[in-house]
Amino acid sequence: MVPHFKLLHQDINSNARLGELYTPHGIIPTPIFMPVGTQGTVKAVQQTDLVALNAKIILGNTYHLYLRPGLDVLNTFRGLHNFMNWQGPILTDSGGFQVFSLSPLRKLSNEGVEFRSHIDGSRHLFTPEKVVDIQRTIGSDILMVLDECAPYPADRSYIKKSAALSLDWAQRSRKYFNSTESHYGLNQLQFAIGQGGVFLDLRAEYLNAVIEQGFDGYAIGGLSVGEPKELMMEVVSHSVELLPKDKPRYLMGVGMPDDILHAIEMGVDMFDCVIPTRNARNAQIFTTRGKINVRNQKYKFSDELIDENLGLFPSNYYSLGYLRHLFMANELLALSIASLQNISFYLWLVNIAREKIAVNEFTKWKQEFLDYWHNNTK
Amino acid sequence: MVPHFKLLHQDINSNARLGELYTPHGIIPTPIFMPVGTQGTVKAVQQTDLVALNAKIILGNTYHLYLRPGLDVLNTFRGLHNFMNWQGPILTDSGGFQVFSLSPLRKLSNEGVEFRSHIDGSRHLFTPEKVVDIQRTIGSDILMVLDECAPYPADRSYIKKSAALSLDWAQRSRKYFNSTESHYGLNQLQFAIGQGGVFLDLRAEYLNAVIEQGFDGYAIGGLSVGEPKELMMEVVSHSVELLPKDKPRYLMGVGMPDDILHAIEMGVDMFDCVIPTRNARNAQIFTTRGKINVRNQKYKFSDELIDENLGLFPSNYYSLGYLRHLFMANELLALSIASLQNISFYLWLVNIAREKIAVNEFTKWKQEFLDYWHNNTK
Repeated sequence: MVPHFKLLHQDINSNARLGELYTPHGIIPTPIFMPVGTQGTVKAVQQTDLVALNAKIILGNTYHLYLRPGLDVLNTFRGLHNFMNWQGPILTDSGGFQVFSLSPLRKLSNEGVEFRSHIDGSRHLFTPEKVVDIQRTIGSDILMVLDECAPYPADRSYIKKSAALSLDWAQRSRKYFNSTESHYGLNQLQFAIGQGGVFLDLRAEYLNAVIEQGFDGYAIGGLSVGEPKELMMEVVSHSVELLPKDKPRYLMGVGMPDDILHAIEMGVDMFDCVIPTRNARNAQIFTTRGKINVRNQKYKFSDELIDENLGLFPSNYYSLGYLRHLFMANELLALSIASLQNISFYLWLVNIAREKIAVNEFTKWKQEFLDYWHNNTK
Repeated sequence: MVPHFKLLHQDINSNARLGELYTPHGIIPTPIFMPVGTQGTVKAVQQTDLVALNAKIILGNTYHLYLRPGLDVLNTFRGLHNFMNWQGPILTDSGGFQVFSLSPLRKLSNEGVEFRSHIDGSRHLFTPEKVVDIQRTIGSDILMVLDECAPYPADRSYIKKSAALSLDWAQRSRKYFNSTESHYGLNQLQFAIGQGGVFLDLRAEYLNAVIEQGFDGYAIGGLSVGEPKELMMEVVSHSVELLPKDKPRYLMGVGMPDDILHAIEMGVDMFDCVIPTRNARNAQIFTTRGKINVRNQKYKFSDELIDENLGLFPSNYYSLGYLRHLFMANELLALSIASLQNISFYLWLVNIAREKIAVNEFTKWKQEFLDYWHNNTK
């Protein structure tokens, strides 16, 4: 089998690395940020705009897509790519996190997790195998295994038990994945998700066990759920040390620009987060000059472009004053412009990161950029 | 002075006509539909998308723009065109209609109308002269005069009194317009608005008086406020007969495709209406194949493109099934796609109308199209 991940360069000053991930819908340069498109749409953003911003891969969510539009619809369209008319790569999260955060009722067993739909209260059962099937129907390029996303804080005995269950599910997931085929002739990839809370020995035990299964990539999960940043970064650093160099590493649900750059430095390759789009809808704008709340009175008369440095629409088209007006007047266009700006910024961030890694200047640049950026974010 | 309106062709089978309206920001082919951009944005639509859909002119609203972002901001940006970065023509409604429909309190006098802002309750006074000044600051290509939009039904004595006031205001507006200059060196145009309710003699008296003032165009106002369609069309037909042939004619706030085509047949040149965008946000989609509610269960599995005939994004990009999903999932993207589709349809409608007028086939086509369209709209 041709390897689907190619390590192109290892930074000589840090663990940051440059790679290429080959998927059925295209090659993804890493490190990469993946905009979140939970329900088959990156909120308030056109698919053509994602192409124009040069987004390389987006996320979908198994829990949401299973409930709506449903497998019958996705099957009719032969997958999510055709349904939403996005022809780039798609990674689908397993839905474990959503079952635990959205469902009004859930019952965990060795077999899987039974839950009620947050939409209509209907009962459903997710098993590791079923979640693979659903992602076969979705036709995602990268499938994530079903896991239990444990809360924080949680005591060691809880995490130990939870991790044992998730590990069993991961093993069943891999076995089932290997014994089934893509519905649409795609060479789909499957990633495991590291669990173990903030207990490093449990994390190590878990990771070593899933690595044995030979997944196509490894995520670090169960973080960014309330634990201190330092603890999160300790777990990331420790996890990355254990992971094979020839497979992509994905830090789920992270995060702020700092977190992403620090994790890149530790050797993480892939990121997703709702922050750029969710915060956009609250008028928090990430720009190359800092983070701003564009509702602030001081932008009322500003004819400065939102972010000329990005050189892309709409960042180089509308002024801060106009964007502020749209937010103050509760206009829908505000949400589109702000979402596009923030996604554009996050993609710019990983683009620059890649450029700097290539010339072994990542660590130096990272520190300078963050100093400048936080100085400007006041 | 060079005439700003050129009559290119008069249909030999009806009163429909083909023209060109010259404005500081471009030439507008007539008959034309003008998408409504009340607060300096056509709701949920990017300015670049309006360009891509070949929108020739959009509307702004004096009442809204005066309150928010306010004249200080508009003055700083040297007008609405720069503020919103739309470089095509803009017509601004006077705000009379909004004062009477939105303001929680208003006091009418000969001088003008005092009202409270619907946003913060602050007190303001609009006079005919002030409304010209505001539109000078907005920098619109076409200014509308301040008028009282009388309710329907209203008795003859009320309408007579109301029309007398509006006529006085129209005369003051023209006088003030002629004695003042554009703030930005634009050759702005000013239109009068015909009033008189559904009383044809009052309408005639009014129109004859404003025509004497030599406005740059004439609107038919005070309609589409609850009167029967037949009565509205009678007033339109009667008004058009009285209007000079060498000036553009604008039917305000109308309407459904039928209304627009009937009025074009009577000799009307310009239209605006919130229907395409407002109804879009309620999942009502106007297509060349009929009007549909895309939430309908029957579109759940539909891979048919929204409206391939239009040949434009997003009509030829997304399926009805996907658009339905976005509405069912309360996704913001639904509102953008539906708004663009409906605007695209309205622009298509007037484009075809112009093509058919040019070859004297308008009336025949209109009947065939409406028969087909209503047959498909079930």
